[in-house]
Amino acid sequence: MSYKYTRKINYYETDMMGIVHHSNYIRFMEEARCAWIEDMGIPMSFIESQGYTIPTIEVNCKYKKPVTCGDTIEIILKVTEFNGIRMTVSYDVKNVATGNTVIEAYSKHCFTNRELRPVNMAKCNEFINEKFQSSLEK
Amino acid sequence: MSYKYTRKINYYETDMMGIVHHSNYIRFMEEARCAWIEDMGIPMSFIESQGYTIPTIEVNCKYKKPVTCGDTIEIILKVTEFNGIRMTVSYDVKNVATGNTVIEAYSKHCFTNRELRPVNMAKCNEFINEKFQSSLEK
Amino acid sequence: MSYKYTRKINYYETDMMGIVHHSNYIRFMEEARCAWIEDMGIPMSFIESQGYTIPTIEVNCKYKKPVTCGDTIEIILKVTEFNGIRMTVSYDVKNVATGNTVIEAYSKHCFTNRELRPVNMAKCNEFINEKFQSSLEK
Amino acid sequence: MSYKYTRKINYYETDMMGIVHHSNYIRFMEEARCAWIEDMGIPMSFIESQGYTIPTIEVNCKYKKPVTCGDTIEIILKVTEFNGIRMTVSYDVKNVATGNTVIEAYSKHCFTNRELRPVNMAKCNEFINEKFQSSLEK
Repeated sequence: MSYKYTRKINYYETDMMGIVHHSNYIRFMEEARCAWIEDMGIPMSFIESQGYTIPTIEVNCKYKKPVTCGDTIEIILKVTEFNGIRMTVSYDVKNVATGNTVIEAYSKHCFTNRELRPVNMAKCNEFINEKFQSSLEK
Repeated sequence: MSYKYTRKINYYETDMMGIVHHSNYIRFMEEARCAWIEDMGIPMSFIESQGYTIPTIEVNCKYKKPVTCGDTIEIILKVTEFNGIRMTVSYDVKNVATGNTVIEAYSKHCFTNRELRPVNMAKCNEFINEKFQSSLEK
Repeated sequence: MSYKYTRKINYYETDMMGIVHHSNYIRFMEEARCAWIEDMGIPMSFIESQGYTIPTIEVNCKYKKPVTCGDTIEIILKVTEFNGIRMTVSYDVKNVATGNTVIEAYSKHCFTNRELRPVNMAKCNEFINEKFQSSLEK
Repeated sequence: MSYKYTRKINYYETDMMGIVHHSNYIRFMEEARCAWIEDMGIPMSFIESQGYTIPTIEVNCKYKKPVTCGDTIEIILKVTEFNGIRMTVSYDVKNVATGNTVIEAYSKHCFTNRELRPVNMAKCNEFINEKFQSSLEK
């Protein structure tokens, strides 16, 4: 399965090079992840209300082509690993107008309780676990 | 009394106009405020450990001259109003190299408990109240 | 006339108080302004291609109620002043779910050429001037 | 050789998890890089005045322990690869108070002209090339 998230680039996301500052893509990846989680019926607010959070433990981002204010990007998100304890999500970001790949990225996550201690979703919360599991399988 | 806070401009704080994005000055004002509060011996971590926080209820910022990456600014902070319930802080921001005024600004604050309900510092916490009071008087 | 811009709050826009950091509203106001300008048929990329830019010379923001990650806000934007040289834009920001006013704000702008020198749009570019003028009158 | 950059965490850099938002470390890495380049006598403003820029082509960041508002971090920066065309910089970020490793990261860069086309510094600008080369060798 893959999830598609589309958004425009804002003026305040550019830097003096005239292009999106590279740190902002880490934020766009989070936006896509939250939209996807919400689309699955388990928005971050729900996950946090159940006592869990999903910290990022690694990000990797390869910058291919710049985009700038007014451009629209499309983020194609895929779950490439999930075992209840850890999850890897990949991102293929394209410039909608040109079809060019803007970045290729992945992020790795674990699941924790409110005290930021790691938990195994497969043992803690079957409902949430199922959702992520089915994303991987589809 | 006035407090002086100095900091350099970072690359990621510029926008495609080649200058600091105007939203960032609101952050620099907060930095100066936190440094000043810490300098008084009541850092935000202490204030929050006592169960209080200091939300911003208004900001006003007049942009006079731009600065950019590599420039150093000096923020001269003054408390112009404090009565235990509300506080107004003014900021005069200068480009250190040229002496030019970069922005003139103020922020208004109240004091709240952990539930974000307003409190009167004069009644809640004499120690903290004294510190702010003396900033106004000096 | 008034223009309505709707957007969700992102996780990375919150702070340790658990609510949107107050500096981010200045960015949401810019987003609304850019969407409105684009809606008029003169996106920022067009205005910049004509050799102009629209710096912000003042912002004022009164914070009424907080919003947080997952909330949706609606920004009602109005032009309250325009004379070719200066423009004032007001913003009424509401939490869509509750109808509560989140912030009340305004921003003041001038028009400049590429060297950031002020210009009179009424004399420089009739097409752009007309667009802003009609926003005021409608 | 290694370069050490120290800075405090700001309130606006935290998120609702109560810790620094993970995207901000990419910015702290840039801060450290700019401070190091300036320390070598070739600040970004100089490099850009010579017609060059140093885009980031990849970042990788492993998050080990969180830090929050008021904490101070120390970034130990090393050049691990440089050949005039590409450069890899590694970052070891520690919490000064605890000595804990906060993140382990690297960034990869190329060198471009004003049109963002790749250049070979070894052929373009001996002075700048020497500086980076000597960082690697020391």
